[in-house]
Amino acid sequence: MASITKQQAAVAVRDAKARLGLTWAQIAEAIGRPVGWTTSALLGQQLMSETEAKAAVSFLDLGKEVQQALQLQPTRGALDAPIPTDPTIYRLYEMVQVYGPTIKELIHEEVGDGIMSAVSFRLDVKREHDPDGDRVVVVLDGKFLPYRW
Amino acid sequence: MASITKQQAAVAVRDAKARLGLTWAQIAEAIGRPVGWTTSALLGQQLMSETEAKAAVSFLDLGKEVQQALQLQPTRGALDAPIPTDPTIYRLYEMVQVYGPTIKELIHEEVGDGIMSAVSFRLDVKREHDPDGDRVVVVLDGKFLPYRW
Amino acid sequence: MASITKQQAAVAVRDAKARLGLTWAQIAEAIGRPVGWTTSALLGQQLMSETEAKAAVSFLDLGKEVQQALQLQPTRGALDAPIPTDPTIYRLYEMVQVYGPTIKELIHEEVGDGIMSAVSFRLDVKREHDPDGDRVVVVLDGKFLPYRW
Amino acid sequence: MASITKQQAAVAVRDAKARLGLTWAQIAEAIGRPVGWTTSALLGQQLMSETEAKAAVSFLDLGKEVQQALQLQPTRGALDAPIPTDPTIYRLYEMVQVYGPTIKELIHEEVGDGIMSAVSFRLDVKREHDPDGDRVVVVLDGKFLPYRW
Amino acid sequence: MASITKQQAAVAVRDAKARLGLTWAQIAEAIGRPVGWTTSALLGQQLMSETEAKAAVSFLDLGKEVQQALQLQPTRGALDAPIPTDPTIYRLYEMVQVYGPTIKELIHEEVGDGIMSAVSFRLDVKREHDPDGDRVVVVLDGKFLPYRW
Amino acid sequence: MASITKQQAAVAVRDAKARLGLTWAQIAEAIGRPVGWTTSALLGQQLMSETEAKAAVSFLDLGKEVQQALQLQPTRGALDAPIPTDPTIYRLYEMVQVYGPTIKELIHEEVGDGIMSAVSFRLDVKREHDPDGDRVVVVLDGKFLPYRW
Amino acid sequence: MASITKQQAAVAVRDAKARLGLTWAQIAEAIGRPVGWTTSALLGQQLMSETEAKAAVSFLDLGKEVQQALQLQPTRGALDAPIPTDPTIYRLYEMVQVYGPTIKELIHEEVGDGIMSAVSFRLDVKREHDPDGDRVVVVLDGKFLPYRW
Amino acid sequence: MASITKQQAAVAVRDAKARLGLTWAQIAEAIGRPVGWTTSALLGQQLMSETEAKAAVSFLDLGKEVQQALQLQPTRGALDAPIPTDPTIYRLYEMVQVYGPTIKELIHEEVGDGIMSAVSFRLDVKREHDPDGDRVVVVLDGKFLPYRW
Amino acid sequence: MASITKQQAAVAVRDAKARLGLTWAQIAEAIGRPVGWTTSALLGQQLMSETEAKAAVSFLDLGKEVQQALQLQPTRGALDAPIPTDPTIYRLYEMVQVYGPTIKELIHEEVGDGIMSAVSFRLDVKREHDPDGDRVVVVLDGKFLPYRW
Amino acid sequence: MASITKQQAAVAVRDAKARLGLTWAQIAEAIGRPVGWTTSALLGQQLMSETEAKAAVSFLDLGKEVQQALQLQPTRGALDAPIPTDPTIYRLYEMVQVYGPTIKELIHEEVGDGIMSAVSFRLDVKREHDPDGDRVVVVLDGKFLPYRW
Repeated sequence: MASITKQQAAVAVRDAKARLGLTWAQIAEAIGRPVGWTTSALLGQQLMSETEAKAAVSFLDLGKEVQQALQLQPTRGALDAPIPTDPTIYRLYEMVQVYGPTIKELIHEEVGDGIMSAVSFRLDVKREHDPDGDRVVVVLDGKFLPYRW
Repeated sequence: MASITKQQAAVAVRDAKARLGLTWAQIAEAIGRPVGWTTSALLGQQLMSETEAKAAVSFLDLGKEVQQALQLQPTRGALDAPIPTDPTIYRLYEMVQVYGPTIKELIHEEVGDGIMSAVSFRLDVKREHDPDGDRVVVVLDGKFLPYRW
Repeated sequence: MASITKQQAAVAVRDAKARLGLTWAQIAEAIGRPVGWTTSALLGQQLMSETEAKAAVSFLDLGKEVQQALQLQPTRGALDAPIPTDPTIYRLYEMVQVYGPTIKELIHEEVGDGIMSAVSFRLDVKREHDPDGDRVVVVLDGKFLPYRW
Repeated sequence: MASITKQQAAVAVRDAKARLGLTWAQIAEAIGRPVGWTTSALLGQQLMSETEAKAAVSFLDLGKEVQQALQLQPTRGALDAPIPTDPTIYRLYEMVQVYGPTIKELIHEEVGDGIMSAVSFRLDVKREHDPDGDRVVVVLDGKFLPYRW
Repeated sequence: MASITKQQAAVAVRDAKARLGLTWAQIAEAIGRPVGWTTSALLGQQLMSETEAKAAVSFLDLGKEVQQALQLQPTRGALDAPIPTDPTIYRLYEMVQVYGPTIKELIHEEVGDGIMSAVSFRLDVKREHDPDGDRVVVVLDGKFLPYRW
Repeated sequence: MASITKQQAAVAVRDAKARLGLTWAQIAEAIGRPVGWTTSALLGQQLMSETEAKAAVSFLDLGKEVQQALQLQPTRGALDAPIPTDPTIYRLYEMVQVYGPTIKELIHEEVGDGIMSAVSFRLDVKREHDPDGDRVVVVLDGKFLPYRW
Repeated sequence: MASITKQQAAVAVRDAKARLGLTWAQIAEAIGRPVGWTTSALLGQQLMSETEAKAAVSFLDLGKEVQQALQLQPTRGALDAPIPTDPTIYRLYEMVQVYGPTIKELIHEEVGDGIMSAVSFRLDVKREHDPDGDRVVVVLDGKFLPYRW
Repeated sequence: MASITKQQAAVAVRDAKARLGLTWAQIAEAIGRPVGWTTSALLGQQLMSETEAKAAVSFLDLGKEVQQALQLQPTRGALDAPIPTDPTIYRLYEMVQVYGPTIKELIHEEVGDGIMSAVSFRLDVKREHDPDGDRVVVVLDGKFLPYRW
Repeated sequence: MASITKQQAAVAVRDAKARLGLTWAQIAEAIGRPVGWTTSALLGQQLMSETEAKAAVSFLDLGKEVQQALQLQPTRGALDAPIPTDPTIYRLYEMVQVYGPTIKELIHEEVGDGIMSAVSFRLDVKREHDPDGDRVVVVLDGKFLPYRW
Repeated sequence: MASITKQQAAVAVRDAKARLGLTWAQIAEAIGRPVGWTTSALLGQQLMSETEAKAAVSFLDLGKEVQQALQLQPTRGALDAPIPTDPTIYRLYEMVQVYGPTIKELIHEEVGDGIMSAVSFRLDVKREHDPDGDRVVVVLDGKFLPYRW
């Protein structure tokens, strides 16, 4: 059995997901982890435990070489280019481009000199119904880490 | 009275804010607009109405040339480099870099083929107390705009 | 049947189109969608419904793996480099480079502070006869989305 | 009287336009040229004749050094970065990024192997009322120039 | 018969040319087109007619899949990097780098505000004997296209 | 008398040329050098002798600090960006981008393994009348320098 | 009293340090903070308290505008280019370039999936005498932050 | 037996290490070299002697083609992009970005004008227990090399 | 016999050199050319004559497809990135980065306005014994080519 | 007396050198240091001792603020862009681009796994008379620094 990379595993996961007509939410439920984490893990950006990886490949009807790839330590970074070209992802970059310094000011004002961690971190994506057109709400929730020598 | 740019106005605003010991929240309250919008507007990324600009310069004890700059149509984009170097802002870029495709998947699964607008958009930054160390919660809230020919 | 990517499907489409001597307009008519949308969809930049994808592969005499790729959610972005090298495409970039700020001024003057959406968007390409040499007219038509907090 | 650059002249024009409360359309009418051309000319991207430049500075109540700058041969290119950061301008870049190869295909199908000139070129920006939200229509109209050895 | 790209066809052409010991000039003569055009066409930068492509593959003893690739619409752009690394090609870039603004001034002075087309364009490369060492003369000959709204 | 740079001298030259209504050809004649060389020298890309510099400032009615700058050893390179944005200059880059490998092939076929020097080099820009529209002819003429260990 | 930036304050600090013949170690001792922190703070990369800033300007014989700049929230990032050109700083980049993945492996093996914080962080630079030539020892000491959803 | 590259050997090493459940420390001990050096050597960044390479492949149960690759002279450089995207590696870049000039100052103050070598160099990674959360300590230890003509 | 590229030939040469335990100096002697030229030719940067290529493949026990590749006209440029990452090669770049303008000044002072050719060029690499540690001496020797119109 | 930077000092040095009609060789002799070192020091790339700086400003008839700048610790790196545009400097880059891997091979073959230092380093530029045209010989002479853990 040849070993495969996390990127190759992600392709296999996407194929199986399409073939079986599953959603990320269903896969997450089968594994017992939040959907945001599960999606990023199956796209190759997280380290899965053996239990999680086994549950994933069993639910997706995939083989052991995928399971082993899911348990590999990831080298993170999921964009093809420093500035993303896909419009859905670019809008996130645009928020950093337009509002980055604003968020920085408000973090410093609300909490102090430091950062919102992107490591001790979770996120959530929700649809919100609105008569003027539905909205997408993305909640970024990271530990505050103060500059401390 | 010579005209000044929005960038020069932002420097004047920061100076006045420091000199008067004000917070962005206090300035926002004086103007009567949300703090996220107010901060980005005073940093040069939004178009202020005459009423808003007058309230801002009056509260900050600044002159008419600042007011006029605040009323100028902005050319948006607040980063000095495509990949930000400041760690607090970089963490936002890192979230796009690591979780961008995950958020894209979840938007498509939750709502459909389209984007979360960064134009019809608001954001909020909050501190959340946590025994393991306080957290920063950034809520991004944008209108869903479907791909529609 | 191995799964293929949208890029591989696009290659198959181009081959079939050349082999069968078809035009994009004929393919669009067969599918019943506008030619601009159809071309971009077959080049991998749009999400096709099952009906559309079936019609396309049937008309182009292609297989099921192409149909499935056409139904995949696209990750959009069709240029090989940030600045395109092909002269026909570069001229479009040149219009942004030379006239971008002009179009921005006129959008703001005509409609207000906001953008012309590239998502709720359609385009048309026409030949216009002219005694001084024929002209190409490209109509970009996007929903106005105002900056609104 | 010191000479100034076209970029310095553009700053002076913008200041005068704001001070006098004029629109680009009004300025264009005063000069007797289309508004797209006039705006780009006053932003430094076109060569004005002496008559046009005189009409412009007279209407805008500006001096001779601005007039002379408007008559200078431009070195064109109006973006601050290869990929624009302002969202209104970025959407134009996004159209090239997503639809560039589509437009290329349709130009070749409609007219042949060649380009839509960005030099023998005019553009128009219009608002179009629509019950689902108004639209912006940008018409790009350039001479077809065939590849011919 | 699998389809091949213009780049793969170019590799086949170079191999055949080396194997048969032919020059570009001989191939051009066999096709009946100028050598500059023929070379760029066989390197994948031009659209060949069926007659031209047939003559080329017949003379080069190549197959139908090469012929079909030569008849494909090219996506032009032949450099591996924005700044070429090969010294022979870099010298051309260096001329643009050092003399570009000079050529621009002289075009404007000789003809007016406009460009020398790179589309309605031909070039010629000649050796010129010189007692101080032979010279290479490259003649670039393009239609003047005036800026005209 | 403060010293100035070659770039500042170029600005002064352009101002004087516009003020006096001179052409590059007239200035070149006054100095007694070819117009291509003269233009590039006055734009800061060549080293002028004392005689040439004196003739230039005398004809242009400029001062000694300009003369001294013209006599300085240049650090060459006249583009603002690696890929030029001005369309007239970009077309030259486009020729390198599209035809660079073609010219390389033809130089090697005509003369051998080596380069056309951009140092022992001269160029000429001419208008050529043509019933289909006038043409610009740029002749690049450089010493062949063979690869020789 | 005009306000100044942290970068301008850093220039003033360097000048005073040179004029007074002080070392960073002496300044750090006067302020009562570690030398690594003090140096980075005076170069504009840290937030100084009022007490620290007052001690610094008093010891360096500088004015109140420097003190205020030292108390400003920094926008961090101290390199002039993404890849530093100064050889002393480049060697640090080279360590990341050559040994980055090694350090990543060892962090994961020693501690787990996570990062060494560059925010809750301190560093030390020491000379170590060695008969084969003295050595520089840089100790990077950061809090481990595990990936935790 | 086909030859393989150091990069292919590194993939084989990682696979074997995962399959056998080994740590870098155990492999280093088997080879008798420090763990930092061993890890970087097996990742393709060092030149292994025949004895070291044989010990490594024997311990990892790999073949002769891996041994030979480990003995090849490396072309060093282990990052996929000039600015690393993986957060664990990026934090090292961030230290250079934020503290690079500080370390430069302290090297010059402690030792003189010169560099800390990244060639005559060793590093160590340690976990340090701390009640506030464990820390990672990276020790960079390089020979001082003074600027000396 | 399938044709191969110069890059593939270089891989074959390196393999054979390692397998046979040869040095570049021995290969150069077998071919009868200088070692600098021979090495760069076998790495794909020079054009070998049939005699030289035959001698090389005979000495290295390689086949005809390698010989033919060695006789191909090279497209030169041997770096993987504009700024090399390998430390041994980077030091050469660093010399250009730190001493480039110095060498330019001295060339102009010693010889005049012109360049040291990198085409009519040879180089030599020597070890020089020194009690303070051996030195590497690289001699770059190129024809002076004056700027001459 | 205001402090100036090393870059401003370099401008003053160049002006004085031109005004006094001196060569770098004469200045080097007056200071008693090699001409390569002296030129790079006066261009801001080396640290001068007080004695050297005093000798330089005295010979060049400059003031104390230049002397002090010459004694400042340099932040090295003298190119305006990662790839130099000036042809004389570019040829040095071209040598790295074309011959860098060759020099790397020969250093490893001649001396071993390591680098030629660019810090413990000296260089020399000489004219060499040659009937086929004079040559420039640049000798790079750096300490060999072996990779040693």
